[in-house]
Amino acid sequence: MPTPDFSHFRVSDDGQALRILDQRRLPTEEVWLELGDVEAVALAIERLAVRGAPAIGCVAALGFAVASHGFADDPARFRDQARAGLARLADTRPTAVNLFVALRELEQTLAACDATAGASMMRQALSQCARDHVTADLQACDRLARLGAELLPSEGGVLTHCNAGALATGGIGTALGVLLRGRELGKRFVVFADETRPVLQGARLTAWELERAGVPVQVIADNMAGALMAHGLIQAAVVGADRIARNGDVANKIGTYSVAVLCRYHGIPLYVAAPWTTVDLALASGAEIPIEERDASEVRHHGGRLMTPPQVAVRNPAFDVTPAQLVTKIITERGVCTPQQLAHLQPSWS
Amino acid sequence: MPTPDFSHFRVSDDGQALRILDQRRLPTEEVWLELGDVEAVALAIERLAVRGAPAIGCVAALGFAVASHGFADDPARFRDQARAGLARLADTRPTAVNLFVALRELEQTLAACDATAGASMMRQALSQCARDHVTADLQACDRLARLGAELLPSEGGVLTHCNAGALATGGIGTALGVLLRGRELGKRFVVFADETRPVLQGARLTAWELERAGVPVQVIADNMAGALMAHGLIQAAVVGADRIARNGDVANKIGTYSVAVLCRYHGIPLYVAAPWTTVDLALASGAEIPIEERDASEVRHHGGRLMTPPQVAVRNPAFDVTPAQLVTKIITERGVCTPQQLAHLQPSWS
Repeated sequence: MPTPDFSHFRVSDDGQALRILDQRRLPTEEVWLELGDVEAVALAIERLAVRGAPAIGCVAALGFAVASHGFADDPARFRDQARAGLARLADTRPTAVNLFVALRELEQTLAACDATAGASMMRQALSQCARDHVTADLQACDRLARLGAELLPSEGGVLTHCNAGALATGGIGTALGVLLRGRELGKRFVVFADETRPVLQGARLTAWELERAGVPVQVIADNMAGALMAHGLIQAAVVGADRIARNGDVANKIGTYSVAVLCRYHGIPLYVAAPWTTVDLALASGAEIPIEERDASEVRHHGGRLMTPPQVAVRNPAFDVTPAQLVTKIITERGVCTPQQLAHLQPSWS
Repeated sequence: MPTPDFSHFRVSDDGQALRILDQRRLPTEEVWLELGDVEAVALAIERLAVRGAPAIGCVAALGFAVASHGFADDPARFRDQARAGLARLADTRPTAVNLFVALRELEQTLAACDATAGASMMRQALSQCARDHVTADLQACDRLARLGAELLPSEGGVLTHCNAGALATGGIGTALGVLLRGRELGKRFVVFADETRPVLQGARLTAWELERAGVPVQVIADNMAGALMAHGLIQAAVVGADRIARNGDVANKIGTYSVAVLCRYHGIPLYVAAPWTTVDLALASGAEIPIEERDASEVRHHGGRLMTPPQVAVRNPAFDVTPAQLVTKIITERGVCTPQQLAHLQPSWS
């Protein structure tokens, strides 16, 4: 099974500390943070030291398992602290569903522990649960990347928005995994990376990952994609997802919807690549997906510098919803399908 | 005739210096630059101390007239220096046509000076020419703003992109003039200002102007406009223009084309407001408009800070072309018309 050439999170050998690459400092600095308790994990998620729907799930799971070493040895108190910890992590970011999938797995793991289980046994079970979650994500990325790579054009340009790479997952990435595998197939497209304001995941993270991988990449301001399409420079767009509703509506980084409309207008296919953990069959449509509104300072500031009148009103929705009819195909480890077919996909074991 | 509540350029009483507000420092600092020779004027335009198609024409004209005080008193050498100066200014920025209109007026003014005219008379003629250019722009802004205001919705939201305000003209602005006059008519729309990467004319300048004028404004990242439209928050879009071809194709700040596609998809009218000096009847279509590609550092940096891998490739077209069929109406001082009617509009004197 191919693995990414780097991992942005690592659990120490004694299982008591989780180190993560601080994504806010990339690409100019590679700084690692050590997370030892629930609050540190929660803040790392809230403040975007780690972001990307699948990666949030992985770090929440591993971080919680690590933090459980600090819970009381008394089993009843252990369970109380675990419940509080899960609630704290659930309260970090609302949109990506992978976080809640991971938290539910941890909760079920605890529930499955015998009432007589000691803290040590519960820690061991949580650790196994977290490792399984990460392994599943890694495998999902690998499989969906291979499936999606077939869809890409053999040359020209492919647009991506935000970062759906190794940094956003536990494996080689979703949208960027598809692009990497496509290049490995000998396809010679170049990648256009939307810089993705306000947090610049495209300029900072996607460009960094693709350069490391030797994939030709050009960074553009978000408002340039339309003009490139009008000039025939873009043959496909591939993005990740933070949550996909049962009807195939896709919540993803703010701006994805604009990309989708531009793709439709220019007759360009839009592919959404995500592990099955991103699919939320409990929601009938994208209208039910909670959209996080983040702090105004993200929009007012650029590179740490105030670039608007100090108190000017801003909007800062972190995500938008692309309706299913604008999505050409959804790529998951279960297969490639139209948004309408999504709810009928069966698990595959290949 | 209403005038803007501030002017961003002023000629000294002796006519020998032009002071301009350095737009690169707004909104956090109000710094004035003094321009005394052609090279200083050219650099101010190239480096965006002044920008906005009509404002570039105004500052080029006034700056050239001011600079002529430094030309030789010998009439033949004066004309040589003037020719070189006009060539230098023509070589600053290629897309906005107003610059070339102003330079042609200055050239024709010199050509109209009798062969026996002395340097002093030529200076006087250039100064009058420049003042006339600015006055005409001020009057054009005022008239088109009144005409365009009628088109605006009485409530809801109006989107604008980049800055087409007083800072971009010699008067109250084009797109922002329309918005200001609309509010004066009692219309209660709010304005959504695209921040307009990479130079942030929307975040920095439009927000600053509208706050000064007491118009409710919300700044958004460029990639948010589509989501706001999907939520029904935008009823119209108004933008300026840098050059309009005979067939009604519009060159304007990069990202305008994406706004136009989004407007079309959502059934929202797109209005382009510009003085007649922006219309270039010599060009059959937008395909003939030269599009300036600016330095990569504008995209790589945010607020002066490097936010991409250092050498990553970027695209940085400063403008794009919106085809006529995506433009609902063009608003000029000659009247409001469809792009198709543009070439047939007659001058009006009201």
